[in-house]
Amino acid sequence: MGKRVAVIGAGPSGLAQLRAFQSAAQKGAEIPEVVCFEKQSNWGGLWNYTWRTGLDENGEPVHCSMYRYLWTNGPKEGLEFADYSFEEHFGKQIASYPPRAVMFDYIEGRVNKAGVRDWIRFSTVVRNVEFDAGAEDFTVTVHDLAEDRVYKERFDHVIIASGHFSTPNVPEYEGFSTFNGRIVHAHDFRDAREFAGKDVLILGSSYSAEDIGSQCWKYGAKTVTTSYRSAPMGFDWPENWEEKPALEKVEDKTAIFSDGTTKDVDAIILCTGYKHYFNFLPDDLRLKTANRLATADLYKGVVYAHNPKLFYLGMQDQWFTFNMFDAQAWYVRDIIMDRIDVPADKDALLADVAERERLEDASSDVKYAIKYQGDYVKELIAETDYPSFDVDGACAAFFEWKAHKADDIMAFRNHSYKSVITGTMAPAHHTPWKDALDDSMEAYLKN
Amino acid sequence: MGKRVAVIGAGPSGLAQLRAFQSAAQKGAEIPEVVCFEKQSNWGGLWNYTWRTGLDENGEPVHCSMYRYLWTNGPKEGLEFADYSFEEHFGKQIASYPPRAVMFDYIEGRVNKAGVRDWIRFSTVVRNVEFDAGAEDFTVTVHDLAEDRVYKERFDHVIIASGHFSTPNVPEYEGFSTFNGRIVHAHDFRDAREFAGKDVLILGSSYSAEDIGSQCWKYGAKTVTTSYRSAPMGFDWPENWEEKPALEKVEDKTAIFSDGTTKDVDAIILCTGYKHYFNFLPDDLRLKTANRLATADLYKGVVYAHNPKLFYLGMQDQWFTFNMFDAQAWYVRDIIMDRIDVPADKDALLADVAERERLEDASSDVKYAIKYQGDYVKELIAETDYPSFDVDGACAAFFEWKAHKADDIMAFRNHSYKSVITGTMAPAHHTPWKDALDDSMEAYLKN
Repeated sequence: MGKRVAVIGAGPSGLAQLRAFQSAAQKGAEIPEVVCFEKQSNWGGLWNYTWRTGLDENGEPVHCSMYRYLWTNGPKEGLEFADYSFEEHFGKQIASYPPRAVMFDYIEGRVNKAGVRDWIRFSTVVRNVEFDAGAEDFTVTVHDLAEDRVYKERFDHVIIASGHFSTPNVPEYEGFSTFNGRIVHAHDFRDAREFAGKDVLILGSSYSAEDIGSQCWKYGAKTVTTSYRSAPMGFDWPENWEEKPALEKVEDKTAIFSDGTTKDVDAIILCTGYKHYFNFLPDDLRLKTANRLATADLYKGVVYAHNPKLFYLGMQDQWFTFNMFDAQAWYVRDIIMDRIDVPADKDALLADVAERERLEDASSDVKYAIKYQGDYVKELIAETDYPSFDVDGACAAFFEWKAHKADDIMAFRNHSYKSVITGTMAPAHHTPWKDALDDSMEAYLKN
Repeated sequence: MGKRVAVIGAGPSGLAQLRAFQSAAQKGAEIPEVVCFEKQSNWGGLWNYTWRTGLDENGEPVHCSMYRYLWTNGPKEGLEFADYSFEEHFGKQIASYPPRAVMFDYIEGRVNKAGVRDWIRFSTVVRNVEFDAGAEDFTVTVHDLAEDRVYKERFDHVIIASGHFSTPNVPEYEGFSTFNGRIVHAHDFRDAREFAGKDVLILGSSYSAEDIGSQCWKYGAKTVTTSYRSAPMGFDWPENWEEKPALEKVEDKTAIFSDGTTKDVDAIILCTGYKHYFNFLPDDLRLKTANRLATADLYKGVVYAHNPKLFYLGMQDQWFTFNMFDAQAWYVRDIIMDRIDVPADKDALLADVAERERLEDASSDVKYAIKYQGDYVKELIAETDYPSFDVDGACAAFFEWKAHKADDIMAFRNHSYKSVITGTMAPAHHTPWKDALDDSMEAYLKN
């Protein structure tokens, strides 16, 4: 068909896009030429672990925000690929909260099978994208870091799949510049053993705070203190874990909180979130959105309303992940392949966004939000040939997961759920999470 | 005269360039419009300290490679501005190895006096520079981070003054990905007190290794181990400091060296240097050079041979710093203001570079190298109205400094030297460096 499509990023979203096109080709369709640019030397995006922090071996910002000993913090039954089950990959059903290495292996398994690796130009960072209104195409400027060569190519469509959990949001508090210990954002947190025997202060009350705090606790921190701004996480924490209200300031090694209490700490870990950040995009193409379920300016959550030849994948805040990226990728593929029409009227695109926002804002209930995103996944899947699956079943797994966390925050990962793809119940893991210090694939698969 | 000049970076080099133009204007000359783009929210470049590491508040790589408690590692008499002495700034002569805050104050003093702050667009990062061969000008694309707005402007000349000590060179060794402690490059090292009581391994044998090791020792590290690849630094180290040959690998917390010896360590600090890195430049404008005195492709050390409308400041490896940047900035100013001619023949420009390389390579003696760079400073100064000063005297201060380091590496900063600008002898500092734990300006100026 002669079209050229650029995919920026070879993480779960970008790989979903490659698999979507490859799937169409496999079924006999003529597909565009797809070129995927990936800054890292391997695929997997956030799941491609590195010990590096800050800037990488090429001087580029490290993409990885993962840490050693990370296990999924939601059940795998909520994210399973509908076209590639865990059972297909591992030859058996596995327990419900796999560590990072197991997840990486699973992600890689699907795209290895699809044979799309040579669509990706690795160690190649995108420097700029410009839209030519006359030619109605994009010029993408990239830097081949291995060859140290900058070059440009033209594309009919650009799909941004570079993620939004790699650029840390790093607030400053009074006294940070004279704090006598380590201050590190979650993005640069790596090995919890480093904090064994230490008094650790964690700022934040969302998933990073909960999980990094739990990691530090599991691997021997002396105490964990978490500081919230709006509300405590409210779990039944272990004895050496305390929740404090907002940090006011630090003096030397003493943290002072808004209720006047204090705590001497050795390290401060900022679990203060991430920014949507696209340093390679000009004003007319750059998404600016809060981290929410109804992303600003994206028709159907993927089409950039201000330039419908540009797409964004996975820019939502997320309950659903891999399977939602798949739903989006198949949907974007079908727009590009002229199987799905996008309204020509920009107001119609923006009206779609406004309606999604209204619906999201209609309730602050967590179950409502999970179901809202489940409905979005269903909506997209209904319009493509992505294999249908029991989205309500996945929502039910999320509800159970929430209840298990409330029961015992250090034991929720000991539970199992039923696959909504294969219908098989996951086995119980052989060791309680808090005692399973070895996070290797070999150890995890010993069930 | 209608010309427009872009200066990229408002550190010591970029500020020297602003002062050079302002000095000409002060003497009655008509000067070009000068616009300086600075990524940080304040001037000072590396000397603008921040507690931040990795990515900054805007998601951009942190420029600062400085750490708390840093004192200059060479005598201030080797870097004094010829047009703005330490005595002029502080109202008295001060001791010879000022801490960072004192140096920042001095740097800022000159440009405050010059009144050039409003030439600088702060929080503005350069994304791209392109040369238009037809119009013979440059289009500079910048991102105003405060306004989150990307825009372009055209300039007749571009001067790159963004430094080359901000992008770390970060090697990987076997076992790094499973090391159970902290691994940090010198670029992200901040507060030595964090390593009090710790066994610290430092990779490298140049200035960063020597000085960060000394910092850790001064602020209470249990032991310091430095590992060299080619040769030991060979100073008379304190008892708890050991030099080891090359690191082979790490296993858990054990470092294993090429001589078969081992050391258990809590942290690894990579003092493995920096890269010349310009992620905003295309192939035809991007300097590629080793860190040496005769920089590749720069005629007279500043004019980019492949496009003589483009200049680079301070890209050399350095003995001389501020005063060399000044010599370069005045020289570049005079080329732009048509006071100095650059040969039209590219071969002549490259022949100049080749001759500089030949001379640098003629000896590996340190004194030779210092004198070589002193001669370069003299050469440039002779062609402009930058105030002449006793460059040989500055070389002599460097020779003495080398001898003082060899005598006692933990005491060389207790020595004083004579200003080559004002002829005044610096006072001895009131406290030996190893006992002076407070590095504030107030404490330092108590002489």
